[in-house]
Amino acid sequence: MSKPSSNGPAVVDDESVLSAAPFILRRVVKWGDADAAGVVYTPRFLHFAIEAAESWFRRATGTHWVNLPSHYGIETPPIAANLTFHHALWPDDRLDLTVHLTKIGRSSYTVAVSGRNQDGVPCFDNEVTYVAIDPKARKSLPLPEALRGKLAAYQDACGRADP
Amino acid sequence: MSKPSSNGPAVVDDESVLSAAPFILRRVVKWGDADAAGVVYTPRFLHFAIEAAESWFRRATGTHWVNLPSHYGIETPPIAANLTFHHALWPDDRLDLTVHLTKIGRSSYTVAVSGRNQDGVPCFDNEVTYVAIDPKARKSLPLPEALRGKLAAYQDACGRADP
Amino acid sequence: MSKPSSNGPAVVDDESVLSAAPFILRRVVKWGDADAAGVVYTPRFLHFAIEAAESWFRRATGTHWVNLPSHYGIETPPIAANLTFHHALWPDDRLDLTVHLTKIGRSSYTVAVSGRNQDGVPCFDNEVTYVAIDPKARKSLPLPEALRGKLAAYQDACGRADP
Amino acid sequence: MSKPSSNGPAVVDDESVLSAAPFILRRVVKWGDADAAGVVYTPRFLHFAIEAAESWFRRATGTHWVNLPSHYGIETPPIAANLTFHHALWPDDRLDLTVHLTKIGRSSYTVAVSGRNQDGVPCFDNEVTYVAIDPKARKSLPLPEALRGKLAAYQDACGRADP
Repeated sequence: MSKPSSNGPAVVDDESVLSAAPFILRRVVKWGDADAAGVVYTPRFLHFAIEAAESWFRRATGTHWVNLPSHYGIETPPIAANLTFHHALWPDDRLDLTVHLTKIGRSSYTVAVSGRNQDGVPCFDNEVTYVAIDPKARKSLPLPEALRGKLAAYQDACGRADP
Repeated sequence: MSKPSSNGPAVVDDESVLSAAPFILRRVVKWGDADAAGVVYTPRFLHFAIEAAESWFRRATGTHWVNLPSHYGIETPPIAANLTFHHALWPDDRLDLTVHLTKIGRSSYTVAVSGRNQDGVPCFDNEVTYVAIDPKARKSLPLPEALRGKLAAYQDACGRADP
Repeated sequence: MSKPSSNGPAVVDDESVLSAAPFILRRVVKWGDADAAGVVYTPRFLHFAIEAAESWFRRATGTHWVNLPSHYGIETPPIAANLTFHHALWPDDRLDLTVHLTKIGRSSYTVAVSGRNQDGVPCFDNEVTYVAIDPKARKSLPLPEALRGKLAAYQDACGRADP
Repeated sequence: MSKPSSNGPAVVDDESVLSAAPFILRRVVKWGDADAAGVVYTPRFLHFAIEAAESWFRRATGTHWVNLPSHYGIETPPIAANLTFHHALWPDDRLDLTVHLTKIGRSSYTVAVSGRNQDGVPCFDNEVTYVAIDPKARKSLPLPEALRGKLAAYQDACGRADP
């Protein structure tokens, strides 16, 4: 997905992906991510986690969430989430988000995202479970086998990287 | 806090508060709350829950979160959150958010928010634990006694309403 | 759209609407609306303006934006916006948003939203132009006559209220 | 600001910066950026523009906005903004944001941000004027000379790149 630039200091990819397995996405905390206390507003952590999961899913499976209905006849909305906060984040902090696939169920998959700042300090942990549904009826469906295979391949690749 | 209107159909309060104990806040799901699937974007549920907790805290304790540093020498950022989703929400749905105070600890308080749509269908449950900290050092502090008393009074009022 | 409450201090409507023509919507600025400077984050003003326009459109025309495709065969995305800021807003400020329909064109309508705080101080002015399009082809279409009539009726009602 | 990665496919910078003068920032449109119509929600364009201006300001002046009070005794909130929309954006679209500094006034600077998608199609244009203020009194102040010099240097560098 990278594209050369004729005028820039570097040829870069669309996003700052540090590692494919485990998938690590780098972002910078922004002015507008902060709340009245000057630190990142709590729901933004869930937003960061879901954006990291979206980028990971796109690369690990070759399909973006918006194309799940046409490619597989499903959508995969979250059914549960939890977050634990360890350390505040401030604007201009760097945030590295590591994505692990912790469970592949019959209809669901669970993604754990953890975030570290520029000093390597763990800032938050997060887990979101996504469930495959029929987009019209909104009833759960088994994960399509082809998709399950790609998710399992990501777990395997992480296992080899993180023995 | 209400203010009369000379030109309107009704004199209303600042927000649509249906009940004081348990605190119930009504809102309408908006166009911009939805994501690419047309239903509410997951982090918005945490945003709804925190906004409801903010309104509840303001009324139950008489202090808005922004004034906690000057009134009590503390801030109370979240340290943990969990969410469970039961039913999707669409723009123009009505959402009634009920706020219970499920735990008052030494330094923390835990707020449970549940949301129902216009048909009374439970849409999500949520729990967020807030911890009192020193705003500068960002270390935990005991909840000030005066604040603890107000929180306990809310629990009592809910206990009488929900026997 | 109001619904009685058996347990609350007041019977309220879904949203705090102070006036129908001109339409005035009241909201309270929230903790999460602020940015790192402690005041409302600039894009939130556009968000406030669009949410006020959405509520107004719903009541003035009887149709929510999400139902425009099925009711009229159109969508009406914004094509232009401008904002001017006069005074900062802080969390817990009250914000009254007044909605005027400043132009009805062949394919478009222009909505001006201005916001005042609890002291009546003007905080921002805003104008957004929405254009009717075919939802599939995304090409502009004339405003349906039935919809144009309802928009014109709102302008008339405001003219009578604001002579 | 780049940091080597021991496990990844590439060493990347914190953000995907394609060019320093004019500053071009690349991002990917996300699932949560879309609204109920499936395209980017209008206020997100202003958010994209402000985040691009924030990254540009950080690199062009060496100071992040959060450090303006301590480095220069000022803040620079927006006082005006306008946006024009040319083409919709969908999740998974790539967005290249080009930042020009169109005016340096006595107390203010004006930043124009334009966005193009992966096919080079212009999607929106935007201009935001930021004004230097005293953070406490919130009254305008002249731009500090050292900061003005850095802003002028960026204009010069763009002039040489864009003759």
